[in-house]
Amino acid sequence: MKVLMTAFDPFGGESVNPAFEAVKLMSDKIAGAEIVKLEVPTVFHKSIEKMEKKIENEDPDIIICVGQAGGRFNMTVERVAINVDDARIPDNENNQPIDEKIFADGKNAYFANIPIKAIVKEIKDNDIPASVSNSAGTFVCNHIFYGLMYLIDKKFSDKRGGFIHVPYIPAQVVGKKNQPSMSVDDITKALELAVKASVENKDDIKEIGGEIS
Amino acid sequence: MKVLMTAFDPFGGESVNPAFEAVKLMSDKIAGAEIVKLEVPTVFHKSIEKMEKKIENEDPDIIICVGQAGGRFNMTVERVAINVDDARIPDNENNQPIDEKIFADGKNAYFANIPIKAIVKEIKDNDIPASVSNSAGTFVCNHIFYGLMYLIDKKFSDKRGGFIHVPYIPAQVVGKKNQPSMSVDDITKALELAVKASVENKDDIKEIGGEIS
Amino acid sequence: MKVLMTAFDPFGGESVNPAFEAVKLMSDKIAGAEIVKLEVPTVFHKSIEKMEKKIENEDPDIIICVGQAGGRFNMTVERVAINVDDARIPDNENNQPIDEKIFADGKNAYFANIPIKAIVKEIKDNDIPASVSNSAGTFVCNHIFYGLMYLIDKKFSDKRGGFIHVPYIPAQVVGKKNQPSMSVDDITKALELAVKASVENKDDIKEIGGEIS
Amino acid sequence: MKVLMTAFDPFGGESVNPAFEAVKLMSDKIAGAEIVKLEVPTVFHKSIEKMEKKIENEDPDIIICVGQAGGRFNMTVERVAINVDDARIPDNENNQPIDEKIFADGKNAYFANIPIKAIVKEIKDNDIPASVSNSAGTFVCNHIFYGLMYLIDKKFSDKRGGFIHVPYIPAQVVGKKNQPSMSVDDITKALELAVKASVENKDDIKEIGGEIS
Repeated sequence: MKVLMTAFDPFGGESVNPAFEAVKLMSDKIAGAEIVKLEVPTVFHKSIEKMEKKIENEDPDIIICVGQAGGRFNMTVERVAINVDDARIPDNENNQPIDEKIFADGKNAYFANIPIKAIVKEIKDNDIPASVSNSAGTFVCNHIFYGLMYLIDKKFSDKRGGFIHVPYIPAQVVGKKNQPSMSVDDITKALELAVKASVENKDDIKEIGGEIS
Repeated sequence: MKVLMTAFDPFGGESVNPAFEAVKLMSDKIAGAEIVKLEVPTVFHKSIEKMEKKIENEDPDIIICVGQAGGRFNMTVERVAINVDDARIPDNENNQPIDEKIFADGKNAYFANIPIKAIVKEIKDNDIPASVSNSAGTFVCNHIFYGLMYLIDKKFSDKRGGFIHVPYIPAQVVGKKNQPSMSVDDITKALELAVKASVENKDDIKEIGGEIS
Repeated sequence: MKVLMTAFDPFGGESVNPAFEAVKLMSDKIAGAEIVKLEVPTVFHKSIEKMEKKIENEDPDIIICVGQAGGRFNMTVERVAINVDDARIPDNENNQPIDEKIFADGKNAYFANIPIKAIVKEIKDNDIPASVSNSAGTFVCNHIFYGLMYLIDKKFSDKRGGFIHVPYIPAQVVGKKNQPSMSVDDITKALELAVKASVENKDDIKEIGGEIS
Repeated sequence: MKVLMTAFDPFGGESVNPAFEAVKLMSDKIAGAEIVKLEVPTVFHKSIEKMEKKIENEDPDIIICVGQAGGRFNMTVERVAINVDDARIPDNENNQPIDEKIFADGKNAYFANIPIKAIVKEIKDNDIPASVSNSAGTFVCNHIFYGLMYLIDKKFSDKRGGFIHVPYIPAQVVGKKNQPSMSVDDITKALELAVKASVENKDDIKEIGGEIS
């Protein structure tokens, strides 16, 4: 089995993106699955296009996109992606779409089809705080998540996909902002546990069926 | 023009629901529109059924459901309702659906078709804090919002609908919990402003078109 | 009886200070006491000096200083002032003392001798959120509070004094920052209730004795 | 040189106290100093008495008390202890003092005389979030901190003392409460860095003099 992990490059004035810092540190083999890693630009549409090419080249069974959710203090596994870009700040190529559809022929929303509750349970069982989130926002994180599920719906129907938000890491907040953070080690471990839960529950129809997909 | 406002009865151990307290205090005539008020039970499906009957009887042009969002400190106008019930606590008749679809034949999600940004602007222009929210949760608030937009999609296609979350009122937090609150007067005024913005922008295609609907 | 209310002018880039906005709106007569109002500069030491002159001229029985606590969502009645200036930002005349004593011959700290718990109770009994706070910070708010209690200790021993922090008002946050706020009306009403409780409990030794003074 | 670290046993329904969990894991030798560890009961006065005996027996140069601050998301080094017990919940022997002085002959407050800013800097330089706090509350944490500084003032005048608050650890929040946490490893490392900074700056009069003591 093969798992593709994507993570954004830094944005919004940050010099690192905790998502990619953690993805880089992940093992290359988890629960028998090969892990492929991809950094994507924090740019509307280009991020989806780069991911799409990688999916075509690598043919992964599971794709998990990872992004930063500054201000959250735990790992949040996203439930749903919505068909809207509404950017409070510009992306890294100065695009700032307001209330635009991501794909004109896409559904209003797509639900993740990785086992979000099994993932949360696996992470918490290992003493790292995690929860299900019902909103990935309306910036590039929701955008790539929506793009992933749209692609799965339209052309990669045998694949599973989802999105996980991670907190700031200490290097981003120390001396800079009064916000919660989580160590890179814990984020990395949590992402590895998320892959483990995704792989182990992939063919368990009942488990997956418990999710809205 | 006629506007139907719905609000839940108290739940989760609360003795009042700030949503209905404020709706009760709203003027009966706003921006030329007649205001009809309906208390709905904090019960999955029954709340939608009661609202559906009222829509049939009253034939309102606009329907705005109102609910409590304990912990939030401003008025939040919801953008999207998703097709899932996932209850952390039981409703008032002890139903606690976990990861169930609301309507089997419904879309994954529906966007509000009241002018959410014009509403937020109108409220803020009157010095009451407000913002767009991208998640109404997965309890009865999202449930009735989803039910409303489903009904508009299936049988009331000329109507406009949306959902507004309101903070706790002081009587709920004082001496009880360390949480933000907003005065009933401000919530009431904000809801009246929301109606005003909805009525005034109802036929302004451009304005409405700015929203994802 | 006479009560002096002081409040700071705007600082930190704000165009209003909610403390003085509310103090201005207070009744001139509360619970039989005459209310005198004084705006003080957001400047270390000058604020104390201006207050000291006013106390000499007006000879009030009770002095309550009021200041802004951006980010707090309720009225907070301060318990203790500490002998240190440690400024994260400059005051309005560009002074930024770091770890300096306010008065070399002052005690490490002084406790308020207005009835802080009776005040909190009175405000909450009127459905406005309030609590006791154990830190007024180390900027000008703690500074003037410390100066007041130092003066009471050294030369105005028959007087009572204290400090109340108020939240942002909506005009400061709407469209500007994602922070809690309280309406000017509620802040004003709460300050009037604080005066009422201070006046009514002034000679009730047991009530006052309940406080650490 | 010798450093005594104290930490409370669990309280308030918790099964562990992160303070003692971390103190237990600290190295026995840091920056050339021997580390002595003491668990104290979460009981008013008994905690101070047990610490006092240990100070007499071990004759440490520096004493750092450590306690849990549930809800905070970083290491907080306390600046000041105040002469008041005001307990919102009972301690572990069911004492619940309200507005009582800790020592009738004590000062209103004592400032820490460990180098609080050098400690914060050392911790942050190692990418763990930390800040100075101006309130240790009015429960047992402030109580033992006050007791320590009172004892240093009255009978152990050559010693240095202070207090550090630590966040919840993940095991306390996962599946239990929606609150921030910090890994035991990071808390332990931060406490070791606090000792290092305290030892290295112990005889640097200028550095210590920068603090209010």
